[in-house]
Parts: sequence; C-alpha cells; structure tokens
Amino acid sequence: MKTVGIVGGGQLGKMLAEAAKPLGLRMVVLDPTPNCPAAQVADKHVVGDFRDHDTVVAFAKEADVLTFEIESANAQALEELVSRGFPVHPTPTTLAIIKDKLRQKRFLTEHGISVAPFAQVDDAETLGYPYILKARSGGFDGRGNALVEKKEDLPAAWEKIGNVPAYAEGLVSFDKELAIVAARTTSGEIQVYPLVETIHKDHICHMVLAPAPVNESIVRKAHAVAEKVLQAFDGAGVFGIEMFLVGGDVLVNEIAPRVHNSGHFSIEGSITSQFENHMRAVAGLPLGSTDMKAPAAVMINILGGRNGPATPSGVEEAQKIPGVGVHMYGKVETRIGRKMGHLTAVGNTLEEAKAAAEQAFTLISI
Amino acid sequence: MKTVGIVGGGQLGKMLAEAAKPLGLRMVVLDPTPNCPAAQVADKHVVGDFRDHDTVVAFAKEADVLTFEIESANAQALEELVSRGFPVHPTPTTLAIIKDKLRQKRFLTEHGISVAPFAQVDDAETLGYPYILKARSGGFDGRGNALVEKKEDLPAAWEKIGNVPAYAEGLVSFDKELAIVAARTTSGEIQVYPLVETIHKDHICHMVLAPAPVNESIVRKAHAVAEKVLQAFDGAGVFGIEMFLVGGDVLVNEIAPRVHNSGHFSIEGSITSQFENHMRAVAGLPLGSTDMKAPAAVMINILGGRNGPATPSGVEEAQKIPGVGVHMYGKVETRIGRKMGHLTAVGNTLEEAKAAAEQAFTLISI
Repeated sequence: MKTVGIVGGGQLGKMLAEAAKPLGLRMVVLDPTPNCPAAQVADKHVVGDFRDHDTVVAFAKEADVLTFEIESANAQALEELVSRGFPVHPTPTTLAIIKDKLRQKRFLTEHGISVAPFAQVDDAETLGYPYILKARSGGFDGRGNALVEKKEDLPAAWEKIGNVPAYAEGLVSFDKELAIVAARTTSGEIQVYPLVETIHKDHICHMVLAPAPVNESIVRKAHAVAEKVLQAFDGAGVFGIEMFLVGGDVLVNEIAPRVHNSGHFSIEGSITSQFENHMRAVAGLPLGSTDMKAPAAVMINILGGRNGPATPSGVEEAQKIPGVGVHMYGKVETRIGRKMGHLTAVGNTLEEAKAAAEQAFTLISI
Repeated sequence: MKTVGIVGGGQLGKMLAEAAKPLGLRMVVLDPTPNCPAAQVADKHVVGDFRDHDTVVAFAKEADVLTFEIESANAQALEELVSRGFPVHPTPTTLAIIKDKLRQKRFLTEHGISVAPFAQVDDAETLGYPYILKARSGGFDGRGNALVEKKEDLPAAWEKIGNVPAYAEGLVSFDKELAIVAARTTSGEIQVYPLVETIHKDHICHMVLAPAPVNESIVRKAHAVAEKVLQAFDGAGVFGIEMFLVGGDVLVNEIAPRVHNSGHFSIEGSITSQFENHMRAVAGLPLGSTDMKAPAAVMINILGGRNGPATPSGVEEAQKIPGVGVHMYGKVETRIGRKMGHLTAVGNTLEEAKAAAEQAFTLISI
C-alpha cells in the first residue's frame, strides 16, 4: 500500500484524504494544528510546522511520495528532497515560482500568457493610479493586498500588508472572473475540467457556477490559456487557474499548484472529483473523466459568521434538499470570514442548481 | 453531526464508511475482529459480537441511528431497539424475514413473487430429486448448501451443513443469474440501479456485468420483480435482489437487506454508489442518481488464493490500467476463496470493460 504525505492539513487536505481511501492509498498529514480538518480523515497526523525546513524533510520519512495543499509549504525542503530522488508532486520548482507572485507574473509573461499589468514597487508609477500593492507571497482571500490611490498612500499601504516584500499590480476592470482546474499525471496525461465562473464577495470566493455562463468563443479562449499554463509549468497534480474576462479577452490572474476552491463543485458535479484526480496523479494512476455528471453545478462557500468555538447549525436540513451536498470542514474554531465549509447543488440548469444552493446556504450558519 | 452505527465491520461496512465521510456523517462500527476492514475507515470501532443480543443493544448508545451490513446481526436486539423508538434501517422485521431463508421464500410467494420451488424438509420429496438442502440461516457463498441426489443422501447432507434447521430447494436450470440493487429512503423515495448479470464460480460471485446483456423485455420483467420486492419488504436502505433467468421468466433467488456484491460496480460505474445511497437513506437524506456514468462497467471479485497472512501483489500495476479501480479490503488473513477485494473497470462497451477488468485481475494475487 502506497503512503502519500500531504504537506498541510486544512480542508483541501481533508477532501484529498477522503478521495484517497477508495483508491487504497494510505494518507499521512503534516499540520501544526491538532485535530485539523485532514487529521480527521487521514491515517496519521504528524503535528508540525509545514513552513519549517527540517520538519518537512523529516516528514518525508513517513511517506512514499509527497504533495502539498498550501503554497506556504517550505519549497526549499521539497526541492532538496527531489534532488535526493524523493518524489514530490507537483514539482517544488513550480511551487517556488508560484508562491512568489511577482516571479509568477514574470514567468507567465515570459511564456506568452497575458496577465494584469504589474511592476516592481520602484516602477509602480508606470501603472498609473490607483494600483494594488500586493505581498509577493503568503497573501490569500484578499489578505496581503492594499489599494494605493495616490503616491502618498504607499507607506500606509506597505504598513497595512506588514512591510513584507511586495509588488504593484494595475487594477483590472473585469466583466467576470473565470477559472479552470486541470490535472496532469507524471506521464503527461492531461484532463481539464469545464470553465467555471467564480463570484467573489469581499475578495473571498462566494459562488462558483459550472459550467460558466459565457459564450463558446470565451470557453475556447480560456481553454487555450489553460493549455499554455500547463505547458509552462512542470509537475504532476491538479492546478487551479484563475482568470479575468476583460472585454472579450482572457487574462490570467493567479495560478495555484494544487486543488482549488473553484473545483470543489467536482465532488458532486463531475465524474471524477479534482481531489480524486489529484491523488491519482500523485500516485501514478491514470486520471478519471472530468466530464460533468449533471448539466449544471453551483458551489457556495460557507464562511464563519462570528468568532469562537464552531457550532454549525442547519447542515442536516440543507443536506435534505435534493441535489445538495454539504461539506463542513470540522474546524474547531469559527472566525468571521473563515472558510468553514462549502455546499454544492447539481441541477438540470444553472438556475435550478443556483436556487437549490442558495436555499441550502440560507439554512446553514456557523 | 449525526453518528451512524454499522452492525458488522467487513468490506461492506468499510465501503459504507468511505461513502459516509464526504456526507459529513460520523461512523461507528461493531465487529468482533480488531482491525477489521471497516475499522480502518470508521471513526470508532467497538470490538464485540454482533450476533450477541446485549452487545447490539449496548452498541446503540454509541449512535443516533443503526444499520447493518450482515444478515447474522442479532435481529431480536434490533427489534427491541425499534420498539423503544430507536431508529434502525432497514427494519429489523425485514431482516428477521430475510435471514430465515424458508420464511423469506414463503413471504415472497405470499406476495406473488416467483421463486424456485421449495419445501420443508419433511415434504422435500415433492420437489423430486435432485434437490438442495439449505440451511435456513447463516449460509452464504455456497456454504450451508448440500446436494441431495437420492433419498439416502439426506442424512449425510444434513451432517454436511452442520445439522442446523434446513429446508429443501429444487434445482433450477437457469440461463443467467441477474441482480438488481435498489435504494429506498425513510420517506419512501426509491431509486433503482440498472439490471446486472452475475457470473458465479464455485457458488461465489466471480464477475458482474453492468448493464446485463439481455434484451429489453427481460430488463422490464426484472424491474417489475424488483418493484414487487420493494413493495413487499419494509425499511429504508439498499436492497440486493438476486434473480434467475429461466427461459424468458425471472424468478427471485434471494434478497439481501443491505448493500450487495452485485452493486459494487456502482462506485466507479454510477453517478451515486450503492454505499453512498445506503448512507443517504439511513441518514434521512434524499438519494442520488443511480444512472451509470460510463456506458458499461465490469466488476470482478478478488478471492484469496492461499491460507495465511495477506500479502497482496500487483495492485498498483492493476490500478494503472485506464478505467480500472481496485478495492482491497485490508483483511489481515487470506484464505482460499475468501473475498479479499474487488476491482471494477468502466468502458464504452461491456467487451472493453471486461477486457480491462480481466487484464487487471490477472495481475493481482493475494
């Protein structure tokens, strides 16, 4: 029995572990939090800091192959493991490029992939005002970003993001946000999930519509962009590709070298979930079909509504709505805006799925 | 979070527990064997004898609702629990009827469902020779059966099955063996899986072809029989209905009030597996679609090839064949003929799926 180690034990790790069981894989998880979401499903939990070099190197002894569910995993430790012949998927080189957002944007541009205008902070004025000051690494869900409306705002903006290394990104006035999740095996087989629309609230993904309600030419352009991205980056596993639709053009926003929130719909909506396909890719198995098994699926994130011990309510009632699947992550503490779970509704049309998802969403609080 | 208790912790319990995790259900298992298959996945394992009255009654304290994966579960204890208002699915009354095969056959006949000719042992001669002497309860995979070719064979046949209460069943010369798995919720919603063909070797299920390669009129007759069976028996959950095709007629062989070997193909082959639908039914959730997600699926059981500690080989290679999923049950000891795992291959035709399944099957030994 092959043992897969996951660096990081949040909800992505939990859903990866759920997908791994029926594949006959043993799962070990590295995360500093006792009783973290993935630890509730994995075969073994090593309590330790995945940002720490030595902890990650030692963790490899527990597994036959490593993967990660969080970009802040120690990329240098993973690179060392690979240089010693230990398999890590996707490649740590890809992780290192992606976790530094400035390096990522440069890399994408070098590979002929359109992104929003960006610059080093020294050259930020070339973008014009306003622009966004972004932490080069570690930011997510809107954290690590600050708006700079005029030159004088810069010191305060830098203060706001914690005086970490940063870069400047031009504001893009987009029509929609789109995303594609794609999987690649160690032998190069690729399967791509349908293009989805992602709808954000307060910089956090609120809803995902699968497939995206856009015309066929946009779908083709987005798939062409996804293909270029996969060609540019090495590594086996699932990649999440966030995009902006601007006019008729598709720009890349960010890449995630891991399973992605925009692919959660695939548990109920697709023949093979992104989590199963990631585990298949990592374990050297062929991928399953990424076709949808229902005409439409709508996912909504369930965020914490207060601070304190998590006490979910309404989950059972929501599960009873036909076509709805609710996934609570089992986090012990809830916080305002923290991702505590998600739900997906499938239906014959996006309208039908959206109605069921919203009905379920109103029932749940945590 | 609702806790579901499963009475019995074999491979069926294991696959039920795998299906329960993404539904957000907590799973507790009752089984006498430490490290039994289901204990490897469930949240808690109570080590105890599920045939023992007091053990089953005490086990109910661990759960919000009980179900069972084995007919030898103590039906009287389950009936007492129900009489006290504790939910058990399917109903223990149904379990009690089904676990006594003579009572089951009488019940089916009373409900207008055709079965093979049967009789009390006293009246066995009315069937003519040869007939099969069958233990009224506890027999499976050919155990508990003995052929009686002439009157003088009866004492030895009874000796062979252990002198337990028995009945006589006429030999049926069937063209094929068929099966249907169906699920019903507590609110009466029913979903039926496609008719499958089951191919036995030495009285043990060897292969399942889904859908069954039979003409449309047989499919309709079999579905009509399945519908009658569900009307006859109470209870929520999955039922396995084994049938004989004799000429153009469909007779019921046996009913299982639980997930069934003929439905294992549904993990890879169906939009919702029989295991997920059983957990949905038991937990009071609506059922998922029982439509196939591939045109064809073929399942093969992996039986022990020797006696001793289990050391599976070839599993990883078999998993690498596109469309193939292998499920090893994690049993510690292998025995000749013991069910140690199964595999399913999906394909565009039964021929394609069968070829992949057989290729995978030849690689695995345990």
